[in-house]
Amino acid sequence: MERKGIVPEIAPVGKELLEKAQARLDDLTKPVGSLGRLEEFARRVVAITGEMMPVLDKKAIFTFAGDHGVVAEGVSAYPSEVTPQMVFNFLNGGAGINVLARHAGAEVVVVDIGVDYAFEETPGLVMRKVVRGTRNMHVEPAMTRSEAEACLKVGIDLAYEYAAKGYRLFGTGDMGIGNTTPSSAIAAVYTKKGAALVTGRGTGISDSVLARKIEVIKESIRLRKPDPADPIDVLAKVGGAEIGGIAGLVLGAAAKRVPVVIDGLISTAGAMIAYALAPETADYMFAAHASVEIGQKAMLERMGLAPILDLQMRLGEGTGAALAMLLIEAGVRIYREMATFSEAGVSGELPA
Amino acid sequence: MERKGIVPEIAPVGKELLEKAQARLDDLTKPVGSLGRLEEFARRVVAITGEMMPVLDKKAIFTFAGDHGVVAEGVSAYPSEVTPQMVFNFLNGGAGINVLARHAGAEVVVVDIGVDYAFEETPGLVMRKVVRGTRNMHVEPAMTRSEAEACLKVGIDLAYEYAAKGYRLFGTGDMGIGNTTPSSAIAAVYTKKGAALVTGRGTGISDSVLARKIEVIKESIRLRKPDPADPIDVLAKVGGAEIGGIAGLVLGAAAKRVPVVIDGLISTAGAMIAYALAPETADYMFAAHASVEIGQKAMLERMGLAPILDLQMRLGEGTGAALAMLLIEAGVRIYREMATFSEAGVSGELPA
Repeated sequence: MERKGIVPEIAPVGKELLEKAQARLDDLTKPVGSLGRLEEFARRVVAITGEMMPVLDKKAIFTFAGDHGVVAEGVSAYPSEVTPQMVFNFLNGGAGINVLARHAGAEVVVVDIGVDYAFEETPGLVMRKVVRGTRNMHVEPAMTRSEAEACLKVGIDLAYEYAAKGYRLFGTGDMGIGNTTPSSAIAAVYTKKGAALVTGRGTGISDSVLARKIEVIKESIRLRKPDPADPIDVLAKVGGAEIGGIAGLVLGAAAKRVPVVIDGLISTAGAMIAYALAPETADYMFAAHASVEIGQKAMLERMGLAPILDLQMRLGEGTGAALAMLLIEAGVRIYREMATFSEAGVSGELPA
Repeated sequence: MERKGIVPEIAPVGKELLEKAQARLDDLTKPVGSLGRLEEFARRVVAITGEMMPVLDKKAIFTFAGDHGVVAEGVSAYPSEVTPQMVFNFLNGGAGINVLARHAGAEVVVVDIGVDYAFEETPGLVMRKVVRGTRNMHVEPAMTRSEAEACLKVGIDLAYEYAAKGYRLFGTGDMGIGNTTPSSAIAAVYTKKGAALVTGRGTGISDSVLARKIEVIKESIRLRKPDPADPIDVLAKVGGAEIGGIAGLVLGAAAKRVPVVIDGLISTAGAMIAYALAPETADYMFAAHASVEIGQKAMLERMGLAPILDLQMRLGEGTGAALAMLLIEAGVRIYREMATFSEAGVSGELPA
């Protein structure tokens, strides 16, 4: 596949390191394979980073915020004013992502990439606004192609910047009233499932609003004709600014060999765009959790990713990513800190 | 049900506190119910402890160790010598449970309740030996009734001791070569499923050893005739010392209103004995994870518990409990630390 100009070089993850890491795991004082997916997390982090003894000390969750013109179609339970209000809540440390990132020892990086509000310079707010809300995809393309590319670039640049600062694990997150609508549209485009099979209730809409949301997604795809072979076209026509930022972050993380934890539906839509641009990115992703939003599962399957958690969550912001980081780190600590059979003097006649 | 002399008074958990806690959760800056099971964990901890603002600062995982006479029947992949070797590994901090408990901020309490080895006084080892390994349940009862009661008492006493010391969250764990065999026997007795439907490969046995293990369990139940209406009889005839210690810990935790996280198959067998003695104990339990061992699922269903994690683990020791503690604590932190709509100035017109 020919690379778009904006997409960085991404090296595929080597099998050899996966095997070397597993050999160490098999020498630890436990039956072979008995730590299940913790072992998978450890060997994948080794292979992704290329380090035989990786440390996940500095962790960052990027919460990209943007607004959506499609809210005018009545697809959301909350008004767009809530997007900037929640950005202030993030900056004050009172939102779900703040609490869970503190718990996971991760920093929250709040990025205004497309909020329909003129923020002043505020400590902690990364100001990279590309659009003041997208346009209403039901009546015109949500973004121009160059806006969509600018969103990708914001994410790529942030990944490079934080990789250079020594961050070793990234998580993705989102805030944007209305953003399950473009995310489900992307799911429909890439999984070839009908809109009804990839659209959920977002923050909690009624049956009639859900029916309207499905209709809006179906119509937007019919009218805008996003081309799945051209992911930037999809992002521009039926996507959103924060989805583009997330896609860029995933591309940048993969280019810099930093593992990236994908949160729920909106983040998975961003990851889906990154995957469509460069399928090798899947090697660098961890799927944090199975969201209640049904469109997410379809996209995870398309990328071959199995969610780490299933806690019936549907908040977004990066909350699932924060929790999954704790488990990925648990796997890496097992790999680094457990005694081997010979170190511990344990009889290690291992069954296969 | 008439209480056995040894079983402490256990108050059922009140619905009122669950509702009061949920009311606070519903006022936090997120769509109602959007944090899924994290909200369940928080409201249950409130109801269990009776504290409107609980803190889970001091946490302990109790790893009970014991040996099993039934190993003589060739049911395990490892020899019994590995049990004391692993106890030393625990005391040196090199085992899986040590790593994951450190990660979760929990202390590991290593209890010799039935190891077939004469430990000397060792820092960190809690010496409460009841038996030097159980007898072979295939040829005689594994323990006498008074031995089984003594095992329960060890667990109850430890729960009281650590509750008095200010520990706020308990986890259960086990070490004992051969102990999936009595655990599956207990599962068969209480779920009324055939041995083949509740017996797995433990540390990793072959098809032929698995067939033998199923046969041994089936025959032991037929010959020993454990009476499900008399849980201490079941524990004595086809159980084990560490299973009894775990059952006691669960009873003591419930009596002292301390939430207790149940690890995998062996811990669930212990919890099953506690539940059979006092069904209210289920209100105080969290099921850490879905073990690969099939007998565990059947017992969890019997007690109405849904596992928090599914990471394909089968190590025991309390490793699943340590990981689940991180998520239970995440729920409590959400409850304590998130801003309410009015505090954050967010428009909270909440959908149902």
